[in-house]
Amino acid sequence: MITVGIIGGTGYTGVELLRLLAVHPEVRLQVITSRAEAGRAVSELFPSLRRYVDMVFVEPQASSLQSCDVVFSAAPNGVAMSYAPELLKAGVKLIDLAADFRLTDAALWKQWYGVPHACPELLDEAVYGLPEVNRERIRKARLVANPGCYPTAVQLGFMPLLEQGLVDVNHLVADAKSGVSGAGREAKVPNLYAEAADNLKAYAVPGHRHSPEIRQGLERVCGQPVGLTFVPHLTPMIRGIHATLYARLLDPGTEVNLQTVYERRYADEPFVDVMPAGSHPETRSVRGENTCRIAVHRPGGDTIIVLAVIDNLVKGAAGQAVQNMNILFGLSETLGLEHPAVLP
Amino acid sequence: MITVGIIGGTGYTGVELLRLLAVHPEVRLQVITSRAEAGRAVSELFPSLRRYVDMVFVEPQASSLQSCDVVFSAAPNGVAMSYAPELLKAGVKLIDLAADFRLTDAALWKQWYGVPHACPELLDEAVYGLPEVNRERIRKARLVANPGCYPTAVQLGFMPLLEQGLVDVNHLVADAKSGVSGAGREAKVPNLYAEAADNLKAYAVPGHRHSPEIRQGLERVCGQPVGLTFVPHLTPMIRGIHATLYARLLDPGTEVNLQTVYERRYADEPFVDVMPAGSHPETRSVRGENTCRIAVHRPGGDTIIVLAVIDNLVKGAAGQAVQNMNILFGLSETLGLEHPAVLP
Amino acid sequence: MITVGIIGGTGYTGVELLRLLAVHPEVRLQVITSRAEAGRAVSELFPSLRRYVDMVFVEPQASSLQSCDVVFSAAPNGVAMSYAPELLKAGVKLIDLAADFRLTDAALWKQWYGVPHACPELLDEAVYGLPEVNRERIRKARLVANPGCYPTAVQLGFMPLLEQGLVDVNHLVADAKSGVSGAGREAKVPNLYAEAADNLKAYAVPGHRHSPEIRQGLERVCGQPVGLTFVPHLTPMIRGIHATLYARLLDPGTEVNLQTVYERRYADEPFVDVMPAGSHPETRSVRGENTCRIAVHRPGGDTIIVLAVIDNLVKGAAGQAVQNMNILFGLSETLGLEHPAVLP
Amino acid sequence: MITVGIIGGTGYTGVELLRLLAVHPEVRLQVITSRAEAGRAVSELFPSLRRYVDMVFVEPQASSLQSCDVVFSAAPNGVAMSYAPELLKAGVKLIDLAADFRLTDAALWKQWYGVPHACPELLDEAVYGLPEVNRERIRKARLVANPGCYPTAVQLGFMPLLEQGLVDVNHLVADAKSGVSGAGREAKVPNLYAEAADNLKAYAVPGHRHSPEIRQGLERVCGQPVGLTFVPHLTPMIRGIHATLYARLLDPGTEVNLQTVYERRYADEPFVDVMPAGSHPETRSVRGENTCRIAVHRPGGDTIIVLAVIDNLVKGAAGQAVQNMNILFGLSETLGLEHPAVLP
Repeated sequence: MITVGIIGGTGYTGVELLRLLAVHPEVRLQVITSRAEAGRAVSELFPSLRRYVDMVFVEPQASSLQSCDVVFSAAPNGVAMSYAPELLKAGVKLIDLAADFRLTDAALWKQWYGVPHACPELLDEAVYGLPEVNRERIRKARLVANPGCYPTAVQLGFMPLLEQGLVDVNHLVADAKSGVSGAGREAKVPNLYAEAADNLKAYAVPGHRHSPEIRQGLERVCGQPVGLTFVPHLTPMIRGIHATLYARLLDPGTEVNLQTVYERRYADEPFVDVMPAGSHPETRSVRGENTCRIAVHRPGGDTIIVLAVIDNLVKGAAGQAVQNMNILFGLSETLGLEHPAVLP
Repeated sequence: MITVGIIGGTGYTGVELLRLLAVHPEVRLQVITSRAEAGRAVSELFPSLRRYVDMVFVEPQASSLQSCDVVFSAAPNGVAMSYAPELLKAGVKLIDLAADFRLTDAALWKQWYGVPHACPELLDEAVYGLPEVNRERIRKARLVANPGCYPTAVQLGFMPLLEQGLVDVNHLVADAKSGVSGAGREAKVPNLYAEAADNLKAYAVPGHRHSPEIRQGLERVCGQPVGLTFVPHLTPMIRGIHATLYARLLDPGTEVNLQTVYERRYADEPFVDVMPAGSHPETRSVRGENTCRIAVHRPGGDTIIVLAVIDNLVKGAAGQAVQNMNILFGLSETLGLEHPAVLP
Repeated sequence: MITVGIIGGTGYTGVELLRLLAVHPEVRLQVITSRAEAGRAVSELFPSLRRYVDMVFVEPQASSLQSCDVVFSAAPNGVAMSYAPELLKAGVKLIDLAADFRLTDAALWKQWYGVPHACPELLDEAVYGLPEVNRERIRKARLVANPGCYPTAVQLGFMPLLEQGLVDVNHLVADAKSGVSGAGREAKVPNLYAEAADNLKAYAVPGHRHSPEIRQGLERVCGQPVGLTFVPHLTPMIRGIHATLYARLLDPGTEVNLQTVYERRYADEPFVDVMPAGSHPETRSVRGENTCRIAVHRPGGDTIIVLAVIDNLVKGAAGQAVQNMNILFGLSETLGLEHPAVLP
Repeated sequence: MITVGIIGGTGYTGVELLRLLAVHPEVRLQVITSRAEAGRAVSELFPSLRRYVDMVFVEPQASSLQSCDVVFSAAPNGVAMSYAPELLKAGVKLIDLAADFRLTDAALWKQWYGVPHACPELLDEAVYGLPEVNRERIRKARLVANPGCYPTAVQLGFMPLLEQGLVDVNHLVADAKSGVSGAGREAKVPNLYAEAADNLKAYAVPGHRHSPEIRQGLERVCGQPVGLTFVPHLTPMIRGIHATLYARLLDPGTEVNLQTVYERRYADEPFVDVMPAGSHPETRSVRGENTCRIAVHRPGGDTIIVLAVIDNLVKGAAGQAVQNMNILFGLSETLGLEHPAVLP
């Protein structure tokens, strides 16, 4: 059994981690921290976990994080980096679900997150936890930077095109739609039901923190600078991301079969599902599940359209973190993640 | 392994059964029928089941239902009763998720469902599949009438009060709120998104088919006629039932501890969760899960208020059916049903 | 033209007041206050008001409230009572949309709202602004206590039965369902989209502040103490209240025609619509409109069921306040309120 | 007073027309037809219209359409063209809210709508009813083709860029998100609440009927063929369209002030609101209102992003039709359309 600790488990990625780990056959939940809720039963905050989780939130300093095999940080940006050096020194593996170790460039991190990075020396070691790209590096990692939700969907969607050098990488467009849980469990007016229901808006059009993360990932894939227009939208769903991706073929006359390109690329991936030609994946088809479903279209002309859906809390956060844990510890990659989506 | 057949698996109880059975460790899905979708892959209709279910819908007559160990009927009212005699004769156990075998009185059935019952001789044998009442009878049954969604919540909520003879059974009120999936997957205008969203209404106030089923269940418990006012409401949720139950104490001066009454009654029940005194259960706390969560209140005066929530598709349909299957075949009652609710 | 001021216009009742008053033919909006948003354009906070409202929020002390003909207080409980004495002295009429002047008993007010009342001497003078009961008193009032949303629906629903002495007033049950806007525009976790969507729960079952208000209103009508069980529910709607009311006939053998009782009672009421017998009013049928739609049922037995729907922000708040203003100033009662509901 | 008839008023554009026309100061509703609902009171089908509309649906043949001043056709595609010749001959003006007269090319119509056009001789005379482009032609028209919902938002969003020749018209991308009412009031499984709620999907990626309409409109504006990629999405809203438009600057070094371009273009338009630079319009800010709100962004690089929102049933259908009627009859263009959006 793997002993697991969780830092900051009171948000949506926290409760989702607990949902998955509570019934993971190789996991023993050992400790969960929260400054705000210390002393309170987890199942009091999240009654859905009654009978599954009988832990109590503890203050971080009073915790036994260092005696865990692995620690997940589900705390906000900037927290994991304050724990990382000590945990790694103690031989604990760390999977950060926030952004602290996603960007390799500390200056870029500071630019987007507003504070200097606390341990830039670890940025090189940290492995970006997108198994479909980095599986082998994850296997040997001590520190995994779990990708953001938008970046997961957008990278998985664009990757085959970029790997094959099929499209103009200077003019990629990612129009992404997210459910409200992506904004977290903090009490903010724009995320109130009466604000977000029956409503849709773009946000952060001048610049979103996930842009540099996506660009970094795509540039690794194609080995050159990438021009990306990324527009996120807030939509009235609890969960779900739908990325609609637009790319222009470099050679419109090409005979390439895009469907085959995608199917081959993801043939061995347990959590990427390339749908039949002509499909339109729905976000609910992955609700609660660790899968990215993709369809690729070329309706005429030289513009390719890729549709990629994930559950932002699962493949876009907690599920992918568990997938990374499975890889880190040499377990079957799908262990504890094999449940169909909840539909309807 | 138990070989399983499903009759009429294209509705919401059908897809929910498939979700649960596809990963049930003791089940082998053998056949699923549908007249309308015969020849079509299940996963084409329900992409959430891709990689989990690779069956194809078949015409009922071409099916191998009779070679199954157990058949679930997820078809509309009136279908299971046309299959029951033959299946039972062939030694197949039958669990009907519709209403065909819920009422023991064939005349009452005809009154509410509009057609004569096709096999009234089986009504006595059929066991009403509410495990919290009938566990021992279910164990030996050939034919299980899986309870309706409203009746499950209302009976579990009222039962301890009636068993203890604490309340005036002539004036029970059940105000129940249901998500729209309770109305099924048929295309009807009132269930359209643009009709049901941001809207709430009572319906069937003059009389709902679940009334006689609830009354029959409650009368068995207290051994006398019951006066029940039942008002169902359609609410903008996908899943979930919230029953708010009102009953008047026979002896307002009684010292009875209601919290204890409920906790004792359900102490050994794996799927009924009595919450701490003062709680307000939320429907989402059981989303996707086979649990009924209950709280009991006495705010002052002689009126008791019971709050009971279930997922109408799980404890109110498919999950309870799997629970019944587990009992029927001597498996652990919770097998395949041990996953926390999906929250948020 | 009536010059109007608004205290605390940044919440949902505030923006709804603005929506209605901005196009009211006899109103000139003069001033709107907000400590938090002072200096900001109203239409910046609420872009829906662009081109309709070009005011800027001002600090209360810097405001010209005292030169208005009427002031609406859309601020939280406890604010209006700090303005009332001075405004009344200045000859300004005051309509409070919060609870400060709803209860006539200052001790009861303190019990439920936690602080002593600031001007108990005004409680007797304040008129409870339910026009269907108090129209004549409102006409001459200086100070109107606009009713709460639940109390509006519940009182209008029960009133004909109580006025006619038809039911047992010791055992009234009001099961009420509200949209989330009823909880206001404050940032609180339980009102987040990801918490309140696809979810339903009762709340405040041990006691809700609207209980004493409802009881007070009903007792005035029937002239005796009333036993009321009131259970509010939070439902995934933006707007809307659906009150399901249960009362027991005193004389079950009575020949009284309930439909006629209701139709007669509200025959001359412009904003109460008694639907045909057998109807089930939907909350969306009054979305954005100042109407209460009611249906009355007696499904058998001695229990009467009344269904009453309002838009909590209109007939349950801002619309009723405008109706009261119309009465106060001798205008046509329906002026500025004659728009059909927005459906779908 | 203008006497008005409506063909096929049982859908969402029908009820929305009724909502607007019922309180339009210069309109007298004279007749409304429906084959399916003939003989039924309009307010029985749509209780939101009780007290506002007391008409009864009549069979088309029994109707007095020919004695109206203007007829709105809110019937499905293919209906208006069967009435048009006769109505025009009778001197009745016709505003078709469906697609019959939107495309000027009869062959293209047949290609997309599957049947030959019934009166191709009228296609040249029909005026495309986008007032922001065709106001003068509408003024003199007998036959107005009210634009589609997507085409309204997309054309208003792109138009200033195309008129000024600023962008590469060969590679325009329109990523559009629509509420479910856009799919109409027909009972279809994909539009059920339990299917469309908490879900998002693209649809018709290989080709949508609004594509040729949008292209035709844009080509008129820029006088050359246009390359458009149009991807519509179904989102869990009742109403609302959010068009996110992407276009590449022809001259990335240009000093053009896009904000000024948009503000000037729409300075005199009563129903197009260019928001301040940096804004993100929300669909709810136009809920129930006849306005298109637009923001233009250039986040860096040569890609321009335009955000345009409308209420699909108002500016995208019934409201724009009333606007066209006002123009046709020389009324103030905003008459009967001056109400702020319903928010929240």
